[in-house]
Amino acid sequence: MKEFAITPQKQSNFSQWYLEIIKEADLAEHSPVRGCMIIKPHGYGIWEKIQEILDKKLKETDHENVYFPLLIPLKFIEKESNHIKGFAKECAVVTHHKLKNIDGKLVPDSPLEEPFIIRPTSETIIGNFYSSCVKSYRDLPIKINQWSNVMRWELRPRLFLRTSEFLWQEGHTIHETQFEAKAHTQTMLDLYSNFIENYLAIPVFKGLKTPDERFPGALETYCLEAQMQDGKALQAATSHFLGQNFSKAFNISFLNRNGQKEFAWTTSWGISTRLIGAIIMSHSDNNGLILPPLIAPKQVVLIPILKQKNLNDKIISLCKKIKTILLEHSISSFIDQKDENGGEKVWKNIKKGIPVRIEIGPIELQKHNVSVSCRTWDPLKKIELPIVRLPDNILLLLKNIQKDLFQNALSRTIKQTISIYSLNDFHNFFSNNAGFAISFWHPNANNHPLFAKYKVSIRCILLSSQHEGICPFSKQKTYNKILIAKAY
Amino acid sequence: MKEFAITPQKQSNFSQWYLEIIKEADLAEHSPVRGCMIIKPHGYGIWEKIQEILDKKLKETDHENVYFPLLIPLKFIEKESNHIKGFAKECAVVTHHKLKNIDGKLVPDSPLEEPFIIRPTSETIIGNFYSSCVKSYRDLPIKINQWSNVMRWELRPRLFLRTSEFLWQEGHTIHETQFEAKAHTQTMLDLYSNFIENYLAIPVFKGLKTPDERFPGALETYCLEAQMQDGKALQAATSHFLGQNFSKAFNISFLNRNGQKEFAWTTSWGISTRLIGAIIMSHSDNNGLILPPLIAPKQVVLIPILKQKNLNDKIISLCKKIKTILLEHSISSFIDQKDENGGEKVWKNIKKGIPVRIEIGPIELQKHNVSVSCRTWDPLKKIELPIVRLPDNILLLLKNIQKDLFQNALSRTIKQTISIYSLNDFHNFFSNNAGFAISFWHPNANNHPLFAKYKVSIRCILLSSQHEGICPFSKQKTYNKILIAKAY
Repeated sequence: MKEFAITPQKQSNFSQWYLEIIKEADLAEHSPVRGCMIIKPHGYGIWEKIQEILDKKLKETDHENVYFPLLIPLKFIEKESNHIKGFAKECAVVTHHKLKNIDGKLVPDSPLEEPFIIRPTSETIIGNFYSSCVKSYRDLPIKINQWSNVMRWELRPRLFLRTSEFLWQEGHTIHETQFEAKAHTQTMLDLYSNFIENYLAIPVFKGLKTPDERFPGALETYCLEAQMQDGKALQAATSHFLGQNFSKAFNISFLNRNGQKEFAWTTSWGISTRLIGAIIMSHSDNNGLILPPLIAPKQVVLIPILKQKNLNDKIISLCKKIKTILLEHSISSFIDQKDENGGEKVWKNIKKGIPVRIEIGPIELQKHNVSVSCRTWDPLKKIELPIVRLPDNILLLLKNIQKDLFQNALSRTIKQTISIYSLNDFHNFFSNNAGFAISFWHPNANNHPLFAKYKVSIRCILLSSQHEGICPFSKQKTYNKILIAKAY
Repeated sequence: MKEFAITPQKQSNFSQWYLEIIKEADLAEHSPVRGCMIIKPHGYGIWEKIQEILDKKLKETDHENVYFPLLIPLKFIEKESNHIKGFAKECAVVTHHKLKNIDGKLVPDSPLEEPFIIRPTSETIIGNFYSSCVKSYRDLPIKINQWSNVMRWELRPRLFLRTSEFLWQEGHTIHETQFEAKAHTQTMLDLYSNFIENYLAIPVFKGLKTPDERFPGALETYCLEAQMQDGKALQAATSHFLGQNFSKAFNISFLNRNGQKEFAWTTSWGISTRLIGAIIMSHSDNNGLILPPLIAPKQVVLIPILKQKNLNDKIISLCKKIKTILLEHSISSFIDQKDENGGEKVWKNIKKGIPVRIEIGPIELQKHNVSVSCRTWDPLKKIELPIVRLPDNILLLLKNIQKDLFQNALSRTIKQTISIYSLNDFHNFFSNNAGFAISFWHPNANNHPLFAKYKVSIRCILLSSQHEGICPFSKQKTYNKILIAKAY
C-alpha cells in the first residue's frame, strides 16, 4: 500500500485534509483570539506574491493606493440601511480607550462618547471623505485601492476561508456616469479572473449574485466562483456596482457637464487571504500543498546532500552558484541548509508545495549534473539535468507545472459540472454527486425548497448565458442560467 | 518682496507651516475618527517607497514576514508588568461583537467574555505563540517582521507624528544567547540609520534611552534622533533589547547546547509613518514639500505645455517617449495631463516636492530640447537639456539632489548642535537657541529642574562618547554624553 505524507487523505475527509495541509505546509495557525489567525512566513509569502502581482495590475490601470482609518463611527454605518443590516450583526465594537488595573485584573476604562466599529469594509468612511473632495465632473473618476485588515466577527472560523480578521485589498471608485461605473465593475471582475486563472491556476465562473446574496448596499454584485476538488464552490472575488446608494448617503455630488448637481456613481471590489484557501483546495494532493510556480514565494528549493564531509563545502558553494544563476533568470530559489537529512528535507519541501526540487550530492557533483523533481510528479521520480543550460530547463518545467495545474483544475471542474433541465435532474445530480449544476432560472423563482434539502445555493447568475430555456423551478421562459452548488 | 507658495512661512510659525505643507502637498488629512488619519495617494506613495526599500533590506538579512492578529487578549498584557503600565493608559478596547438597532440608533450588543485591546505593539501575542514553537537551540534564532497598523490612543494628535492609529514595521527576534540578542538590537539600529541617512537624507544621532524613556518591558532601548529644521528632535527609529522579560512572561524556553532549559533572549524594533513627518520637517521649504529622489514615489514630472493645438499630439507623444526612456534607466516619472495651465502645474508639483520637473512645449519641441528644473533650485530657474542623453543627465541631477539634501540637513544639524559643560552653558544655550545640546551626564543625575524649565529632555545617551568629563548636573565624573533637546 502506498503511503502519503498527509493523513487523512482528501478522498476520506476533505475538510480535515485541508487543515492538515495548512499545518504540514506551515502556513498558518489559529490564534488565542477567537476567529483570528496567525499567518506564518510560508503562508504570508503567498499573500505577498498575491499583493505584488495584483498591486502592479491595479497601478497599471491607474488606481492609487491610500490608507483610511481602521475605526468606523457608528453614525456612518447608520446612513445606509442595507449596509447596517449587513454588518451590524458581526462587528467588533470599540467602546473604551483605556484600561484600569483592579486587583491585578485589567478592566476597560474611559468610555468613548461614541463607540466605533473595526472596519468590516470601508465604503462609509471613504464615502464621507470624498463628499468634500468631489465638486465637479473634472474631479472624476477617482480610483483608489487599500491593502488592509478588516474584521467581521466569525463564530465558525476556518483558517483562510472564514476568519474574524482577514487581510484584503479593497478598491473603491467614483464615476461621473452610471455607464462608466458599471463598466468599471466589470473591468475589475475581468482583471480578477485573469489574475486568478493565470497566476493561481484556478478556473472561475463569472456571475452576478442574486438580490439575496448582494453586498449590503450594492445594486449589483458580480463574483467569481471557483470549484474546489471536493466539488464545492468558493467565492474567489467580488465586484460591486453601488449605484448612487453610498453617494446619496454621504452626499458625494458634483456639477455635471450641464452645470447641474448630480450624485456620483460608485463601485467597490475586493479579494482577500481567502484566496490562499482556494489555492490549497484547488491543487493540493495527499502529499501536501502544491503551489503554482507564479504564486510560489520560492519556486525552487536547492537541497544539498551532505554525505561526505570533504565534499560538503563544494556542494554548498555549487548550490550558491546555481541560486545566483537562477536569480539572473528571474527564478526564485533558496538553499535548504537546515540540520536535517536529505529525506526529511525532500518531504518537508514536498509538503510545502515548492514547485521544483534540485538535489545536489556527491554523485551529482562528480557528474556535473543535478537531480531535479517537480512537485506535480511522483515523489520518487527524479531526472538528471546538466548544470549547463539549467535555467532554461527549469523555466520550462515551471511553465509546464503552471499550465498543468490550470489544465487539471479545469478538466476536473468541467467533469464535475453538469447542466440540469428538470427537478428530477436536480435530485439525481445532488443525491449522487458533488459539483456544480447549471440550470435555467427565472428571477421569479425564489429559492426552491430543494435547495435547502440538498444544502446547496445559487452561487450566481452566469454572465455567459445567451439562449432561452425553461426555468425548472418556476416553469417560466428565461435567458438566465444559474450556477448551483454547495459553498464554502 | 518675494512670494512663497506656503503660508505661514516656516520661520514665523513652524508648526502651522508643517500642517500647510501636508495640505498643499496633498499627503494626508485628519479623519472623523479622532486621532486617526487618512493617508492620501501622495503620502501613501512615500510610505510604499519606505516599505519597498526597507522590506528588501530586512529580507536580505534573513527576516521573514508574518501576520499576527490585530486584537490582544487582556491577560497577555497583564503578564509583563512594565508592559501594562506602558500601554494600559492609551489603548482602544473592544468589548462587544455586535450592534443592535434601537430606534434607528446603533448600540453595542453581545458583550465579549474577555475584552481585547487593539495592538499597540505585538510582543505579547508573538511571545505567546513562540512559547510553543521554540524547543531547542536548533530552533533559534527566529527573525520575523510584520507590516501592520497599530493603535495607541492619542489625545493630542498631529498628522504623521502622533496619531492614534499609525502604520509601522515591527521586527521581533528570538535568540539563544544574550550576546547574540544584544548584537542584533544594534545591527537593526545600524540598518535603520543607514536607511534613514542614505534614502531619507536625514542625518541621525545614535543613542540609548535613559531608563525613564525605555520601551515598556525592555532592558535597553536604542534610538535614532534626528534634528528637524526648527531644532527640535524627532525619534526616527527604536530598537529594543528585551532581555528575558518577555520570554519569562510567556515561557519561551529551550534546551540549550548543554541540554539545560533556558529562557530565550528577545529583541524588537520598528519604524513608522512618523518618518513621513521627519522627511517633511527635514527638507521642505516655503514653497512646499521637498522629497529626496530615492524616496519620492515619482522622481520626475513631465509637464506638457499645450499652447498650440496643432502641436499638442506631438508634445504628448514626446512626453510618453521620454517617460519610457526614463523608465528604462530606472527613473520613475509621470505625465501631468490634468486640465490646468502650465503655471498651475508647475506650482502644484513644486508643492508636492517632485524632485525634477521637465517642461515640454512648442519651443522645446522645435529645438529638440526640454526645460529642466530641480526642486532644490529657485522655482524660476530652468536649464535646457538636449533630448539625447537625457537619462544620464537626469540621473546626475537626482543624485545631486539626494546628496545636497543630506549635506544641507547635516550642516544645519551641526550648526544647531553645541557642546555644553556647565549649567550656565545650559541656560545660555536654551534661552537663546533651538537645537541640540550635548553634555556629559552621570546616570546618578536625575532629570535636573532645568530640563522642565526649558521644556527639554534627554533624548538619549550617545553611543559614540569615549572620553571622560564632568557631569554638570551631578558634578560626577562620567564617560556618558547625552543629547538634550525639545522633542516631537
